[in-house]
Amino acid sequence: MADHTVTVGTQPVQVPTGSLLVEAAHRAGVDIQQPCGGQGRCGRCAVLVTEGTVRRRSTLRLSADDIAAGYALACQSVVEGDVSITVLPQEKIERRLKTDLTAAEVKVPAGYDPQAVQTVRRVALTLAPPNMDDQRDDWSRLLTALRAEGIEAARASLAQLRQLGRTLREGDWQVTAVLDTEAWDCPDCPARLIDLKPDHVAADAPLWGVAVDIGTTTVTLWLVNLLTGEVRAQVAEYNRQIERGEDVISRIIYATKNSRNGDHGQLRDLVLETINGLLETACKRVLAQPTDVMKATISGNSTMMHLLLDIPAESIRLSPFVTAVNDVPTLTGREVGLNIHPDATVDCLPGVASYVGADITAGVLSSGLEDVEAVTLFIDIGTNGETVLGNNEWLITCACSAGPAFEGSGVINGMRATSGAIEEVWINSDTYEPTYRVIFSDKPVGICGSGLIALMAEMLLTGVIDKGGNINLTLPTPRVRTGEHGPEYVVAWGSETAHGRDIAITRVDIDNLIRAKAAIYAGFTVLAERMGIPLETAEQVLVGGSFGKYINVEKAVEIGLLPDMPWEHFHFLGNTSVRGAYLGLLDKQARAQIRAIASRMTYIELSADNTFYEAFTSALFLPHTDLSRFPSVQPAVTT
Amino acid sequence: MADHTVTVGTQPVQVPTGSLLVEAAHRAGVDIQQPCGGQGRCGRCAVLVTEGTVRRRSTLRLSADDIAAGYALACQSVVEGDVSITVLPQEKIERRLKTDLTAAEVKVPAGYDPQAVQTVRRVALTLAPPNMDDQRDDWSRLLTALRAEGIEAARASLAQLRQLGRTLREGDWQVTAVLDTEAWDCPDCPARLIDLKPDHVAADAPLWGVAVDIGTTTVTLWLVNLLTGEVRAQVAEYNRQIERGEDVISRIIYATKNSRNGDHGQLRDLVLETINGLLETACKRVLAQPTDVMKATISGNSTMMHLLLDIPAESIRLSPFVTAVNDVPTLTGREVGLNIHPDATVDCLPGVASYVGADITAGVLSSGLEDVEAVTLFIDIGTNGETVLGNNEWLITCACSAGPAFEGSGVINGMRATSGAIEEVWINSDTYEPTYRVIFSDKPVGICGSGLIALMAEMLLTGVIDKGGNINLTLPTPRVRTGEHGPEYVVAWGSETAHGRDIAITRVDIDNLIRAKAAIYAGFTVLAERMGIPLETAEQVLVGGSFGKYINVEKAVEIGLLPDMPWEHFHFLGNTSVRGAYLGLLDKQARAQIRAIASRMTYIELSADNTFYEAFTSALFLPHTDLSRFPSVQPAVTT
Repeated sequence: MADHTVTVGTQPVQVPTGSLLVEAAHRAGVDIQQPCGGQGRCGRCAVLVTEGTVRRRSTLRLSADDIAAGYALACQSVVEGDVSITVLPQEKIERRLKTDLTAAEVKVPAGYDPQAVQTVRRVALTLAPPNMDDQRDDWSRLLTALRAEGIEAARASLAQLRQLGRTLREGDWQVTAVLDTEAWDCPDCPARLIDLKPDHVAADAPLWGVAVDIGTTTVTLWLVNLLTGEVRAQVAEYNRQIERGEDVISRIIYATKNSRNGDHGQLRDLVLETINGLLETACKRVLAQPTDVMKATISGNSTMMHLLLDIPAESIRLSPFVTAVNDVPTLTGREVGLNIHPDATVDCLPGVASYVGADITAGVLSSGLEDVEAVTLFIDIGTNGETVLGNNEWLITCACSAGPAFEGSGVINGMRATSGAIEEVWINSDTYEPTYRVIFSDKPVGICGSGLIALMAEMLLTGVIDKGGNINLTLPTPRVRTGEHGPEYVVAWGSETAHGRDIAITRVDIDNLIRAKAAIYAGFTVLAERMGIPLETAEQVLVGGSFGKYINVEKAVEIGLLPDMPWEHFHFLGNTSVRGAYLGLLDKQARAQIRAIASRMTYIELSADNTFYEAFTSALFLPHTDLSRFPSVQPAVTT
Repeated sequence: MADHTVTVGTQPVQVPTGSLLVEAAHRAGVDIQQPCGGQGRCGRCAVLVTEGTVRRRSTLRLSADDIAAGYALACQSVVEGDVSITVLPQEKIERRLKTDLTAAEVKVPAGYDPQAVQTVRRVALTLAPPNMDDQRDDWSRLLTALRAEGIEAARASLAQLRQLGRTLREGDWQVTAVLDTEAWDCPDCPARLIDLKPDHVAADAPLWGVAVDIGTTTVTLWLVNLLTGEVRAQVAEYNRQIERGEDVISRIIYATKNSRNGDHGQLRDLVLETINGLLETACKRVLAQPTDVMKATISGNSTMMHLLLDIPAESIRLSPFVTAVNDVPTLTGREVGLNIHPDATVDCLPGVASYVGADITAGVLSSGLEDVEAVTLFIDIGTNGETVLGNNEWLITCACSAGPAFEGSGVINGMRATSGAIEEVWINSDTYEPTYRVIFSDKPVGICGSGLIALMAEMLLTGVIDKGGNINLTLPTPRVRTGEHGPEYVVAWGSETAHGRDIAITRVDIDNLIRAKAAIYAGFTVLAERMGIPLETAEQVLVGGSFGKYINVEKAVEIGLLPDMPWEHFHFLGNTSVRGAYLGLLDKQARAQIRAIASRMTYIELSADNTFYEAFTSALFLPHTDLSRFPSVQPAVTT
């Protein structure tokens, strides 16, 4: 066999025709990680072919664009001539998956002009001091100075009026005022004084705001300089409410029970602790005080919003499932209990319904869905499986009670996507031996959502389970067995795990996961049917929610969780909710758009919809009863 | 001498020609009180001549209208033919002088139409209950019902949103909402929800509001049914702040001192106790709860307003004498600390300057001054002697620091107009023996403001003092003497008094009183000079403040406190401040007028005005250096 020169980075090596790129790289001293064991399934071994060509045996996990750009899977690409390749820094890829975007990566909206679109303004004022010929009251004097800055009318709280005289005199009639010039719920109201400091603050000193997304599981906070739009710190933390219930339903039950016992606001306190902790952390990074934050824009699902504000959420849980309020009035830091400036504006973004909250309206804005002509499916995979179908002309939405299975709850060895969670699994189709990747650890503790999706898909593809989810106990491997909870497949032996116990997935777990994925897929189906279009005609799928980022799309398609579409039609947008809050924080027009989205979205209540039950039942198979919907999925035929 | 028949009531008696009406009445068994000893000075013996005529020797204390109506002073009217007279129920006259108008006597403004002018509205709403086909949130549901009542937009507090769901369900979607539809400081703002009760309240059940005047000495509260405009209870009580200082200056000093010691709001607490006590009393009378009160309109001088709101008042006291705020934003019961509905509107009326407060702007409105063409002098005699000169075209105002002498302070035997105070005095010009009237008691304790004015005038008229205020110690009476504090005149011997000590007025007291009256009169002079008109061209004098009602006008003119004008040009309006608050409470147009008055009044700062000092010096005589200003006053020539 002829030899070819493969240049790996700057290192040339000789390899025989037919070698794999991984082998060539190894010869050049570069070990490319192959988490799936070289089966071409994980896509983690992608390299860039910079010169020459290779024969790609498989391009799974690569988009057409990727291929055109020269990417190839090192474990699936055969050397048939001289080539040069660049091995991507693997560590960088890993980090990208595990953490959020870094602050520098959030793009400030093009042409951000705070004067035009930011409601919070800071103005340095020089007041005329009083004398015997000018005895106007202090407040009138301040109003005059504000008018000179174009702020025609303003309003102060009683507490501010109590401080007014002292502040003006302490600053010797030079003060810096911060005002919210336009409340979304009263554009014609006078500007509201937030802060008044003696002396002049430097014009380029940052003016802080925060965008907050309160997820059922994770709370995310971005600290933003409102003068430039720059995100200066991004922090996230588990919602401390988790200790009182994993999902919104259990939290509502807890809150209702405790409210009857006279113990109001315990869940409120927990989420406030979470946010205030994040605030502290973010502010420390930029050497600011939490009380320097003059505006907060808050997104989150309807239950999270009610619990934050200590508004009883019980009606969300009980038929006919209504919220107390979708469109919360403008509030202040003091009213909400945030440790930002007590008079800072707190703007809670509007939701649509009990199970389609501000996280979705904000998500739709930040996804750009409402700007495109192409029919688009926007999904936020999580407990509620909120889905929006639409484009710039129409928007239709629903939420299905998927349950928390994909968040690791209701699955014996399930866990949240934290340290020790198995997040990706591959099963060898010959030996049924799994390979897995664990978050931030060598030894696994359990399996998180993305791990469960991968595991289900691999089991289906390798025939460990059939399309009904039944485990094939006849396979020649000790990993299939009947355990305490019935049939199960062992993913990790006790010898490999952190706690020394086997980590297995049971038949019951699989049933829960099938019901969850069926509910989500049925939601898509109902929306498409309601609009009279086939689901497959959707031209793109936007996946929001931090959960979405970690999902292996092919595997999610394989189990029938996501519709069967080409890889490149899926776009992972990350936390669209906090991004929408960020846009609303910066720009009153974006804020108005979010409200417009909320009011133009048609909400379909699935529990009142007969077609949902049918669609759900049809989806209780892997991937689906109707295999024509999943042409690319070919389950193994079990013997 | 011929006899004539005098019919007293229904009792005819025969009296000789030349008899006085008092003698005829006595013969008929009716003893008419003559507090001044039959000198024709007090006017208290006025009777109505219903048939025939009498010869009036004196008509002092009777207006031309009174005479035309048939009134005659019984001690000064001579029988010269058959007459019938009606003796007015004396007790009623007394009560009228001592207490405020009874509720029934306050006239509801003609054509009061709450739908048109009242900002507070109560609406009974029937909401569409939610179901699976209508899952709008509770708040949207309420908004829809409000829109059907013509309330286009509304706003709720966080606390109200917390209660919303329960109230709607408790009322089975039938509720009664109370809203303030228009804040004076934001007519374009959404209506503000005040109260939401489950079930429907009867449409004719009263809707309560209160008008409050916070006087430095007395706090007055009127409880009003906003649906009809009727005043249903009127109560008044001493301002409990009195124990921390008699006048505004001493209160500001106290508040500032205590605020530095970290003890904020002590004066606030005291006035709140006073108002809340009155509220309790008034509500009990109509079987209502204080929390049923949905709106409070508050008047008072600028210091009282600042202390009520716990806004530092120190700048009011110190040059250049400015308030923190004249135009207080709309507040709520909770914010202010009133025990009315926590979300009730509290509207503090606007003042003009440190010493021309809301009591004066409200007073100008309720006096009707700004509606007349005639140049009018409006005065509120008290510590500050606020004065307004003007008409429907212009208004000019000032305040002079009269000091608290007329409120009984700074005078050794001075006291407030309460039980035991000598309120009226007459001195016999032959014997120098006084006759006096005591409030609610037989035995005097001290002398109140009106008593001091009367005493000064009587002493001047009888020569006990000269125009410089010097006591004539050579008079043949033991009542003039040199006491512990120098020259003095004894009004009541210890044997007559409640405490057994002599009640005397000293030379030093007289000096204080002269300075006080000089300051007030100088204020009038400055305003007139500023407008370039003689003071005497003012066509009417409106005397506001509860103090004004008790003043004997002639005596006030005699000492040069009031300008020398015909009796009928004076009108005592009582508490114009609470009446203005009442009008503002009822009618948003009246409220807007008060604000317009505040902004169109030109304020003259007397302490920066050279003409004031000259006018003050000229007025340091009884009645004045320039006697041509007081043609009707003829002081006794002392020997």
